[in-house]
Amino acid sequence: MIVNAYAASEKNGPLKPFQYELGPIGPQDVDISVEHCGICHSDLSMLQNEWEMTAYPFVPGHEVTGTVAAVGAQVTHVAVGDRVGLGWHAGYCMTCQECLDGHHNMCATAAGTIVGRHGGFADTVRARGASVIRLPEGIDSSKAGPLFCGGITVFNPFVQYEIPPTARVGVMGIGGLGHLALQFAHAWGCRVTAFTSSGSKQAEALKLGAHDTINSRDPAAIATARGQFDLLLCTVNVRLDWNAYLATLKPRGRLHFLGVQTEPLDLNMIPMLFGQLSVSSSPVGSPGTIARMLTFCDTHGINAVTEHFPMSRVNEALAHLHEGKARYRIVLDRD
Amino acid sequence: MIVNAYAASEKNGPLKPFQYELGPIGPQDVDISVEHCGICHSDLSMLQNEWEMTAYPFVPGHEVTGTVAAVGAQVTHVAVGDRVGLGWHAGYCMTCQECLDGHHNMCATAAGTIVGRHGGFADTVRARGASVIRLPEGIDSSKAGPLFCGGITVFNPFVQYEIPPTARVGVMGIGGLGHLALQFAHAWGCRVTAFTSSGSKQAEALKLGAHDTINSRDPAAIATARGQFDLLLCTVNVRLDWNAYLATLKPRGRLHFLGVQTEPLDLNMIPMLFGQLSVSSSPVGSPGTIARMLTFCDTHGINAVTEHFPMSRVNEALAHLHEGKARYRIVLDRD
Repeated sequence: MIVNAYAASEKNGPLKPFQYELGPIGPQDVDISVEHCGICHSDLSMLQNEWEMTAYPFVPGHEVTGTVAAVGAQVTHVAVGDRVGLGWHAGYCMTCQECLDGHHNMCATAAGTIVGRHGGFADTVRARGASVIRLPEGIDSSKAGPLFCGGITVFNPFVQYEIPPTARVGVMGIGGLGHLALQFAHAWGCRVTAFTSSGSKQAEALKLGAHDTINSRDPAAIATARGQFDLLLCTVNVRLDWNAYLATLKPRGRLHFLGVQTEPLDLNMIPMLFGQLSVSSSPVGSPGTIARMLTFCDTHGINAVTEHFPMSRVNEALAHLHEGKARYRIVLDRD
Repeated sequence: MIVNAYAASEKNGPLKPFQYELGPIGPQDVDISVEHCGICHSDLSMLQNEWEMTAYPFVPGHEVTGTVAAVGAQVTHVAVGDRVGLGWHAGYCMTCQECLDGHHNMCATAAGTIVGRHGGFADTVRARGASVIRLPEGIDSSKAGPLFCGGITVFNPFVQYEIPPTARVGVMGIGGLGHLALQFAHAWGCRVTAFTSSGSKQAEALKLGAHDTINSRDPAAIATARGQFDLLLCTVNVRLDWNAYLATLKPRGRLHFLGVQTEPLDLNMIPMLFGQLSVSSSPVGSPGTIARMLTFCDTHGINAVTEHFPMSRVNEALAHLHEGKARYRIVLDRD
């Protein structure tokens, strides 16, 4: 079977139509007929080979929604025609300690949807069983793609750290991840504060679920929040004054990083010691947590706020993201 | 009532006999007739005014065991003659959120036994109610003082982070804290590795409960432990290659600091992200956790390994600690 995709043939090169042969379906494979595919910052990072693991020709796309086109002989949890989604991972070993414990996203040999594989900027994408997750009936597949990477990334810490609804949560950076974090934290029952440097985003953050906002470029404003937060979710990928943010945590609070910080953190230990603070980070989430998130989104009417481009205009869409103009997540629609 | 104590009259000065008037007992006060008092590194730090909160004349000592000499009118949980202990905290507000939640050691207005108060290098020390904890019958009071600060410091993370007995635990630094951490981790049911640079301590670590040891100055040895630990307890107060230690954590592992690190941590985020790692720190523990620890020590026969000096030779004892010669915790016995 021939797949019609968009691929870059070299680092940072433009995406061009690209065809490849899919080969016979394996017993645990699921082929998805792609209808929509979100664009994530990590598609750009991979395109630029920032993490030195990109293979060219490179087909980005790991926020896929569509319908099941074919299933391998051993696949039982989805059937042809089902509405499904696919995120960062396209398969897990299913037998390591982490997989057995339900932490498949920690599987050392998990397959990345766009790492040595061709992704979802295409009419078809193939993945292995457990990574393909059915969409609840109430979920709009045209907006759901971003939940499978950006969404699960910010939803996962609520589950991992058993954040109670009585927690006060701060979201640092209101973009593709942050605008979903605000909605999740609000629906989770938490009191939510948005940290953003953008005046226009402050108003939007309130609509998305924040109870209040703090100007993230105003040290005095940050200082007024001293000792307020149980959980800070950092979705920015620039260096901030981390110790100023640590000071806004309550005793036993957590500063959790979801964006990739390339510079080492320079954390002062004494406030961490006296406050029993934790600093942590995590990548996406397990398929079980993704399924739970989708149900939660269905219950609470949570959607990504999306801008749409036809897939044939993928380069334009990538430029829009690269320029920081996305409000808040771009989705490619199959032409 | 006159208390006979040992005090420094200036920063880093020698301790000399010092008498002070205790004043009438308050309704929630407990006066302890001191029998033994451990010496902790933080007594030295306070003597040197390292944390800029020392008041002179300064009476160190916050690892007290003894018997109750007098109780205030509202004290009901201990009675005159009871064998008790006292640690870093000599009182809590009892009504803030942290106290109400059982996290008294996070109380913002908790009184430090040697912070603006006179400590346990004395024949008598006064503290407020909940901070004075009864010793279980099987606990030897001559060795139990160090449990009240060094012990609870390393016991507390097992409780706070609900470490399961199936966890693999590494203890970095085998000294006053580390030698107790090894015993706790072993009795907790964990597989235990000691990281130490000292050949003689490697052998002792095995006797104290370590299942194996790693030379903490050998980067190749540390590298062989890649992905092994659920919990690393760092009891050293020198800068190590933290990122090399992070690499020895399993997915979802935790590097937890118990010594005071004065230099900022320089942590690489990418391994933290991919492994969902946490870095954290904590100070001592709550009175509820101290009581639980004492019962655990009683059940498992856990004791500090102590060297003893009569209290009148306190300066000699402090020098012994300062020179790094303590094996593993020094206790002053009342003359």
